[in-house]
Amino acid sequence: MASPVTSAMSTREKLLRARVAAARLAQLTTPEKNKILHAMAEAVEQNAERILEANRADLESSGLTGSLRDRLMLNADRVKAMAQGVRDVAGLKDPVYELLSEWTRPNGLRIQKLRVPLGVVGIIYEARPNVTVDTVALAVKTSNAIVLRGGKEAVNSNRCLVEILSGVEGVPDGGIELLDSSTRQSVQELIQARGLVDVLVPRGGSELISFVARNATVPVIETGAGNCHIFVDEAADLDMADRIVVNAKTQRPSVCNAAEKLLVHQAIAKDYVPRIAKLLLDQGVELRGDERAMHYASGIAVRPAEEQDWGEEYLRLCIAIRVVNDLDEAIAHINRYSTKHSEAIVTRNEANARRFLRYVDSAAVYWNASTRFTDGAEFGFGAEMGISTQKLHCRGPFALAELTSTKYEIVGGGQIRE
Amino acid sequence: MASPVTSAMSTREKLLRARVAAARLAQLTTPEKNKILHAMAEAVEQNAERILEANRADLESSGLTGSLRDRLMLNADRVKAMAQGVRDVAGLKDPVYELLSEWTRPNGLRIQKLRVPLGVVGIIYEARPNVTVDTVALAVKTSNAIVLRGGKEAVNSNRCLVEILSGVEGVPDGGIELLDSSTRQSVQELIQARGLVDVLVPRGGSELISFVARNATVPVIETGAGNCHIFVDEAADLDMADRIVVNAKTQRPSVCNAAEKLLVHQAIAKDYVPRIAKLLLDQGVELRGDERAMHYASGIAVRPAEEQDWGEEYLRLCIAIRVVNDLDEAIAHINRYSTKHSEAIVTRNEANARRFLRYVDSAAVYWNASTRFTDGAEFGFGAEMGISTQKLHCRGPFALAELTSTKYEIVGGGQIRE
Repeated sequence: MASPVTSAMSTREKLLRARVAAARLAQLTTPEKNKILHAMAEAVEQNAERILEANRADLESSGLTGSLRDRLMLNADRVKAMAQGVRDVAGLKDPVYELLSEWTRPNGLRIQKLRVPLGVVGIIYEARPNVTVDTVALAVKTSNAIVLRGGKEAVNSNRCLVEILSGVEGVPDGGIELLDSSTRQSVQELIQARGLVDVLVPRGGSELISFVARNATVPVIETGAGNCHIFVDEAADLDMADRIVVNAKTQRPSVCNAAEKLLVHQAIAKDYVPRIAKLLLDQGVELRGDERAMHYASGIAVRPAEEQDWGEEYLRLCIAIRVVNDLDEAIAHINRYSTKHSEAIVTRNEANARRFLRYVDSAAVYWNASTRFTDGAEFGFGAEMGISTQKLHCRGPFALAELTSTKYEIVGGGQIRE
Repeated sequence: MASPVTSAMSTREKLLRARVAAARLAQLTTPEKNKILHAMAEAVEQNAERILEANRADLESSGLTGSLRDRLMLNADRVKAMAQGVRDVAGLKDPVYELLSEWTRPNGLRIQKLRVPLGVVGIIYEARPNVTVDTVALAVKTSNAIVLRGGKEAVNSNRCLVEILSGVEGVPDGGIELLDSSTRQSVQELIQARGLVDVLVPRGGSELISFVARNATVPVIETGAGNCHIFVDEAADLDMADRIVVNAKTQRPSVCNAAEKLLVHQAIAKDYVPRIAKLLLDQGVELRGDERAMHYASGIAVRPAEEQDWGEEYLRLCIAIRVVNDLDEAIAHINRYSTKHSEAIVTRNEANARRFLRYVDSAAVYWNASTRFTDGAEFGFGAEMGISTQKLHCRGPFALAELTSTKYEIVGGGQIRE
């Protein structure tokens, strides 16, 4: 078999190979796919040393430091975790060819609606090499060919992983294609490959996602932008509010489901704004506020929030606080500025909670819980491609079922249309 | 209320009005929406004369003739049918806030997945004024604001209809917006209105659809391209094949679910190709064929098919015939050239039928029935926005349920992530 990695094939040639592979993958049975996945997990573990060596080359040549270096870095435990992730996907229910509904029309036509593979799935992503393995596992399980365009920092790690995964018995030629990461050309070709790519997932920073969404002519699922809000209602249990706000802001500030904005009902703002401001400050959180929040928190280090703060995803230990007149103002503020990812209300008033849950127009809306739970594993779906913030096809955790399309199979006895 | 039709508002102003209206529409109950729909049907009937007058102005100024003129033309019966279509939509089940699934996580979080409105739906369409009324009815039923960009031939009809529909009590300001159809500028603004339009549906010829798909930065659902195939297997009931092929090709050749290509198994080609060729010729169908089909139909007027024929949607009384060696060649041919709309196999062999149904990668695949049944009404869904030929969100008839997105409502008791 021609190596998908080392050959000098063009992006178009790789995509054509992926299309052919997709037709073969669609014919694999669930046991065949699970066998491939277990063999992949084993191959990753057996080649741990080789993977770590490739990864060291990336770490050295990238010159990255701090959290970016940490995202790129693999070690023995992380390699084991990648292999376990593949085994976990093998254990999930196969969604392909699941019967979704069936009915018979008055003319006798029997209609069945089934899940089917998407076909060729493209992904453009940044540093983390584990995304390579997760994505390949999800693609195999859903009988999709996968075309990967990783970041140039991870080029050696990704090459090594794709060589190992595509060498596993049963993986059709072209089923896993890795595009050149040294220039932007492969990105341009991938996002414009109409008819060759069924869905493209940009996974990374907001700049990458926005670039892809604006320039792609193939269908895209946007993931990951999270300007998440917590609204502390006048009827809130304030101890619970403290725990939820601190957790959602500080437990892992660099991820998309971390809270970025705090809205406080004016009836409790005088007491609650300074209280939560102090708590957050103790956790090293930088504070910004609107005029009223600044007023109530006088004496605490709060900088004035600018208009652009309300739309910004900080992705670090920073939060902006706004005092709102009532529930409906909180809902309106969120619907105006949110990226429609995850929002929470803290309240003891069920009517308020129900109104917030219903009319906040976001993928996941919480009553008395941290926004940090918006995650495929936390929802019980297993591994995921990301969190979708768009309204078409998939909203919220983008997991196995969302890697499928549907078709209608219709059985007749010679019916024609009059 | 400011008239959505006669004012000189910009596209952006209209879209901002639509966004505000979407939030109000999301709060309407099912009875409130059905009341609006019944009032709309009545208003259409009561204003029939005014509508016909506006339509006469369009017919005169457009200078259209033949089938294009027929598509644009309204008469008393067609106005009644439009009103009845709105009443039919009122009678359909409301999908909004339907509970799709619910479960409780080990940590006690209760997750519910619900259908929710998309928000602001845009549609770009051509001549037929009934699309205006159908689309508005579907939007009201699904609590979506609708932004219409009709064709310039129908400008008077569409203005008149939107004035009547948006004047009905209960329709929020901005809930139905009609964009300027005199220039392409409104199209450009609509397809690039990221953040203001949740989904855009181009409905019309392949040129329009391709232009929108290539240039839009908002999410698009592509509809309507139908290069549909019928495969007559060696085990076919040939009388049934005759009826299905003639029906699928000739009953309404200008629509997307009409057959455009005929594949014949080589084992029966010697007899069946001349037989079906004569039948089709008698119905006025122009015939094209590959080398073997030409050979078997010698003496019948069959022109050689060029490579581009296999990918073309004729939308008229023309068909191309190809002889294939076996079932798998038929499947491979279809998966290569089809627009993935509707395909049919005629056979008495169940194993062949099941293989065809499963591995032909199209929205609707038929065994022993005409492709002409791919239609919202024929499937039992009621009115539709079109037939989707893409794999994301919606495949096949694009009806009420597909005009919704989903959200997760999650109820906790103070859960935070460890």
